[in-house]
Amino acid sequence: MTTVALDAMGGDNAPNAIVQGALMAARDATLEIALIGRVGELRPLLPRMPSNIHLVDAPDAVGMAESPTASMRQKPRSSIMVGLELVREREASAFISFGNTGAVMAASIRQLGRISGVSRPAIGALFRNARGSISLMLDVGASVDCRPNFLVEFATMGKAYFECVLHHRNPGIALLNIGEEPNKGDRFSKEAHALLQRDEPNFVGNVEGNGIFTGAADIIVCDGFVGNAVLKSSEAVAALLSERLGSVVRSKPHYVLGGLLLKGAFEELKREMDHRSVGGAPLFGVDGTVLIGHGGADAESVNSGLQLARRVGDSELVETIRAALAGSASAQRVERRVESSLDDTPSPAPFPSARSD
Amino acid sequence: MTTVALDAMGGDNAPNAIVQGALMAARDATLEIALIGRVGELRPLLPRMPSNIHLVDAPDAVGMAESPTASMRQKPRSSIMVGLELVREREASAFISFGNTGAVMAASIRQLGRISGVSRPAIGALFRNARGSISLMLDVGASVDCRPNFLVEFATMGKAYFECVLHHRNPGIALLNIGEEPNKGDRFSKEAHALLQRDEPNFVGNVEGNGIFTGAADIIVCDGFVGNAVLKSSEAVAALLSERLGSVVRSKPHYVLGGLLLKGAFEELKREMDHRSVGGAPLFGVDGTVLIGHGGADAESVNSGLQLARRVGDSELVETIRAALAGSASAQRVERRVESSLDDTPSPAPFPSARSD
Repeated sequence: MTTVALDAMGGDNAPNAIVQGALMAARDATLEIALIGRVGELRPLLPRMPSNIHLVDAPDAVGMAESPTASMRQKPRSSIMVGLELVREREASAFISFGNTGAVMAASIRQLGRISGVSRPAIGALFRNARGSISLMLDVGASVDCRPNFLVEFATMGKAYFECVLHHRNPGIALLNIGEEPNKGDRFSKEAHALLQRDEPNFVGNVEGNGIFTGAADIIVCDGFVGNAVLKSSEAVAALLSERLGSVVRSKPHYVLGGLLLKGAFEELKREMDHRSVGGAPLFGVDGTVLIGHGGADAESVNSGLQLARRVGDSELVETIRAALAGSASAQRVERRVESSLDDTPSPAPFPSARSD
Repeated sequence: MTTVALDAMGGDNAPNAIVQGALMAARDATLEIALIGRVGELRPLLPRMPSNIHLVDAPDAVGMAESPTASMRQKPRSSIMVGLELVREREASAFISFGNTGAVMAASIRQLGRISGVSRPAIGALFRNARGSISLMLDVGASVDCRPNFLVEFATMGKAYFECVLHHRNPGIALLNIGEEPNKGDRFSKEAHALLQRDEPNFVGNVEGNGIFTGAADIIVCDGFVGNAVLKSSEAVAALLSERLGSVVRSKPHYVLGGLLLKGAFEELKREMDHRSVGGAPLFGVDGTVLIGHGGADAESVNSGLQLARRVGDSELVETIRAALAGSASAQRVERRVESSLDDTPSPAPFPSARSD
């Protein structure tokens, strides 16, 4: 029996959508759900309580716009902190929250620590590519000011995900860049390309922005600043297009008729593009399974997120990453010397402590 | 009478689509077009030659994948080099190419030089935002490894475009970042935010990736690496979505009927999203008007590009940028000292000479 810890208080539609999603997922009796939040608020939403949903009280809730570090200081018993404690104490195999991404990240580092050998955590965005298979882009916002060798670690962690969770042994890994040739890009990308070429057997080269969604690569690595900007703008374009399509369709009577005939097609497409098809973004590099779902999640997305969290939590992902990066802590010291001869950019601060924002 | 120099040899559909676009634009007798390329190839495409199209011979053509610097060395008489010469000699008020972006950029710097006070050139992407007005994002690929103060210059150049070409006196300027609060982002963005806040009265703060297309800001500034990745991925999402919509619509008979009824709506939407609505991306910072159009341009896009090139070439854009940045060359030296106390990243190479790739 797998227990997934679920943050009932995080997300734009919390706690209602979260509770409804938990009820959907609980139809599967082999899944245990620890539903974490203000019990007084949650109980009225659960007139009928399935035996595999367990309420766990957490008096505090972190808002979507709160400062991650301030939230930990001021709300040590938030649903996020309590949920991660369950993972740390091995009472749950995974934690998922649809709440404040920064707060989940900072609390995960505090509660679980990082896997030895990991320089920085990464949030991995999973999406269905144009070929219909799953692609993973990381990092999409956990770590900025990356050093080139962090991207080699991201590649290793992504590969572990494909191996352990998707049972795909040989994923192709690409570097997000602004040209396909090896000598393209900024200084950071040129160095990252050289390191990936040397150290990552599955490296297939650069992809440009228009290659992310084609399925040309299974895994796309990038600095968290670029990944975040690309992900958010891509989501926005998709939303904008479907909104514009809707308003053009409403603009003329025969369009409206066409729109009615195509209702099913539009819905099919929406489902295909939606987050709900994937459910959540794994936080790579922390010593335990943590997933971050989209703040706008509805009950169905929460249900998908719980399925995914169970699947990742049941896998050997963390152990595989640990084994793959074992000894790389010492390797990194060598790396740093090698790099500093290539590039005299100052070293960034070490792995952010839970106290830094 | 305005003369626009048009590269007949650049683009995926060159020279045919270019010549057809020139013929469309030439219906307006007040526009003179210098059509530059291999005259032997062009003449057969022009059985009837309007009096306002002038063939200018250029024996060489630069391929889409050629190295920018090698192309200048090996093909000093390419259609790109010859077209820019016309601008330099004031025989044309603007040059537009739908060919190799890097080659146009490198050749523009070589032939025209940069405007005094400009540290780096920037390519500006113009698009219609969700409010229906024009937004400008720069840089989208001309300059990587930017220093924070380059973004202040990009803001100044973008503002000059709004003033001179769009007659919009007070555009709002935002910084592309991964959070809205001033303290968000990587080191580069935090510094750029501080400089924009201090030096740019029209600065409205950060926008995230999902704020680019909303119209929340008229001008969005960013490093060329990020801008390029965002632009290409956004274009790809739009293309992917419309392709998927097409194939879902073809999948069931009543969908096909709906699709026929909506044909006009889809076309309307496509036009709205297309490059052709804008026509080309101005290259900011070089001492003359240069526009780069999309390689996939068809005749209609070439026509739009020519209209835009004329409009920009007739404006006071270059002079306005020169006046706005006058004296900033000395200001930059001070800036550099101020910055180096904030950030000890090594200075990038000076403005790329035409010889660097």
